[in-house]
Amino acid sequence: MNPRSFPCQLISWDEAYQLSRMLARAIKSSSFRPDLVIAIGRGGFVPARIVCDFLLHSLLTSIKIEHWDIAACKRPEAAVRFPLAVDVQDQSILIIDDVTDTGDTLRAALNYVKSLEAGETKTGVMQHKTTSSVVPDFYADVIMDWRWIIYPWAAHEDLVGFTEKVLSVELATREQIRARLKEQYTLVLDENCLTEVLDDLMEMKKAEKIQEKYRKI
Amino acid sequence: MNPRSFPCQLISWDEAYQLSRMLARAIKSSSFRPDLVIAIGRGGFVPARIVCDFLLHSLLTSIKIEHWDIAACKRPEAAVRFPLAVDVQDQSILIIDDVTDTGDTLRAALNYVKSLEAGETKTGVMQHKTTSSVVPDFYADVIMDWRWIIYPWAAHEDLVGFTEKVLSVELATREQIRARLKEQYTLVLDENCLTEVLDDLMEMKKAEKIQEKYRKI
Repeated sequence: MNPRSFPCQLISWDEAYQLSRMLARAIKSSSFRPDLVIAIGRGGFVPARIVCDFLLHSLLTSIKIEHWDIAACKRPEAAVRFPLAVDVQDQSILIIDDVTDTGDTLRAALNYVKSLEAGETKTGVMQHKTTSSVVPDFYADVIMDWRWIIYPWAAHEDLVGFTEKVLSVELATREQIRARLKEQYTLVLDENCLTEVLDDLMEMKKAEKIQEKYRKI
Repeated sequence: MNPRSFPCQLISWDEAYQLSRMLARAIKSSSFRPDLVIAIGRGGFVPARIVCDFLLHSLLTSIKIEHWDIAACKRPEAAVRFPLAVDVQDQSILIIDDVTDTGDTLRAALNYVKSLEAGETKTGVMQHKTTSSVVPDFYADVIMDWRWIIYPWAAHEDLVGFTEKVLSVELATREQIRARLKEQYTLVLDENCLTEVLDDLMEMKKAEKIQEKYRKI
């Protein structure tokens, strides 16, 4: 995959809600009833909360998985950054994330929870990409044509990241930025959204070169 | 307050997103930059995730506060059910919840975090009710006329709870249930939503008396 150009898809709040509801229905249709739901941070926070709503389930906690660049490794290694603060021994566990991509995050979470001698442990995501090395027990949607999914709770951060990438080559006007985002990442940004993204890039002092330009145009 | 009748307000995903964005802007406008964001479970999971998006902040974790009925106490006592699993000593902390009602949850979370010798600790909610005994450092909206706010991530559970209440008196048809929800809780449910709620109540075997009735109508 060329990191400078790949297809993206923006998901709306209503779409994310429907996907989370479908995930919850899949879990409800099974015989599995978790003692504890664990959201993988940060992507699993919203779907896990929605799943708990539809399961009428109160016990929700979180772990944070991070990806570290390890020298000589082909890809970053997923590891637990914030562990669990509750005893899960012999408890049935439902781990929730937004999406499987490589599958590394879900695998790290599963291995971690199993290392704590949890009971039956199952995983659920809204969207399962067939590129993933792990197949979750529950999912609402399968993605066969790989694309980067931008969920509404990560939209600002993702758009800042992509805009930073299209800006890294040379000076650009607002129109050029919009054109590149569309060409390289199939992203169409409205004016307010672009302003907020550029404001943040400016604040981060990573876009100093456009400081004068984009205000004028 | 009469527990059998009070005004409710359903908040849409778009409204909740806007409120969370406004909360994030209030935080960004201040000089406060947290080392760690803590979502209070379960209500704070979604707003905390959105706030992290707009702050471009990666370090998000959660605690769970529960309310316990203590004999001889006028109201339930808020206590930490799932503690933190990370060291917060001398770290600046931002605690996020959806709403302040009595303020007990936020107070319990603050006292807990302070007991761990955290550094500067601030609190933020989407909506601050003036009934709260704690005023958060950041909020997007003030509610002066008390009402129960139903956030989209808690809608199913809240509606199941309210429907259970209006069903507890006597047998009722779908139309009677809808009329009572409107009269007692200012709630207007569509047919699909009511079906899902009643299905869950049936499954919970708390609504056995309506089992025959509502299927027919």
